[in-house]
Amino acid sequence: MKLESLHDLFVEELQDLYSAENMIIKALPKMIDKASAADLKGALTEHLEQTKVQADRLDQIFDQLGDELDRKGRKCKGVEGIIKENKTLLSEDAEPEVLDAGIIAGAQKIEHYEIAAYGTVRNYANLLGRNDWMQILEVTLEEEKQADKKLTQLAEHINVQAKAA
Amino acid sequence: MKLESLHDLFVEELQDLYSAENMIIKALPKMIDKASAADLKGALTEHLEQTKVQADRLDQIFDQLGDELDRKGRKCKGVEGIIKENKTLLSEDAEPEVLDAGIIAGAQKIEHYEIAAYGTVRNYANLLGRNDWMQILEVTLEEEKQADKKLTQLAEHINVQAKAA
Repeated sequence: MKLESLHDLFVEELQDLYSAENMIIKALPKMIDKASAADLKGALTEHLEQTKVQADRLDQIFDQLGDELDRKGRKCKGVEGIIKENKTLLSEDAEPEVLDAGIIAGAQKIEHYEIAAYGTVRNYANLLGRNDWMQILEVTLEEEKQADKKLTQLAEHINVQAKAA
Repeated sequence: MKLESLHDLFVEELQDLYSAENMIIKALPKMIDKASAADLKGALTEHLEQTKVQADRLDQIFDQLGDELDRKGRKCKGVEGIIKENKTLLSEDAEPEVLDAGIIAGAQKIEHYEIAAYGTVRNYANLLGRNDWMQILEVTLEEEKQADKKLTQLAEHINVQAKAA
């Protein structure tokens, strides 16, 4: 693909995020399964449902971008790498409390990737004069920031339990 | 490796960051080389020097963790993936202003990975009663946050130029 305009770059970043969201939808159930603390399991389960809605929001924008565009045209290598890292963690021989702390750390890396990426496409949508897309992307961006904050809160007592393990 | 304690997890996360910083030190010169805007080249060059100091700070902590520990024992798959993503971008046939916008987006993904990871190890160091390590890691964390803010500021005019390309 030729990157001739900000619109082209917007499309690439959006394809990356579409790929990322769909990989996260597949990865979260394994993290939920391996988590022990009930509140961590709950927060990740809630975030899984939220992630499905976030993928739907990207579908809405792709619907408007036109049929000729392949929304599955790219694989997000960044999130693919972070998920690989998480898979390695889940396969380790770990104390349950320590694994929970590690799952939070891994989930926050995913959140931060998305905070960076949604912040970028939100700004591009604004410059492209698409206030409607900007608002859709802003909603997801705020959800990702809140999800990250929630994980930081959970870490406060889960990391203490990991220390005591 | 067996993850029996928060200390074990701290070591793994620190090895990941050591690998990440050293991959970033190799990746940044290619991003600087492909960037066109003088202020973007300048900011990335400054961040490259900062990254070398950040790697040295990790060395300081590893020196205290003891000789038997292999600081190069892990490869950070998350940052490896983000750098792969950036390399793909740099190889694309792009208008210079659009490429600059994409380089900023990619650099912010790296920054955000590091913000998540340094936030995590800073908290672990605190719980492990190592105030000295906590302070060292806090300095780097603040630098990463500032570097991300600087990139957001640069994006304000560089994205406008990409829009006009």
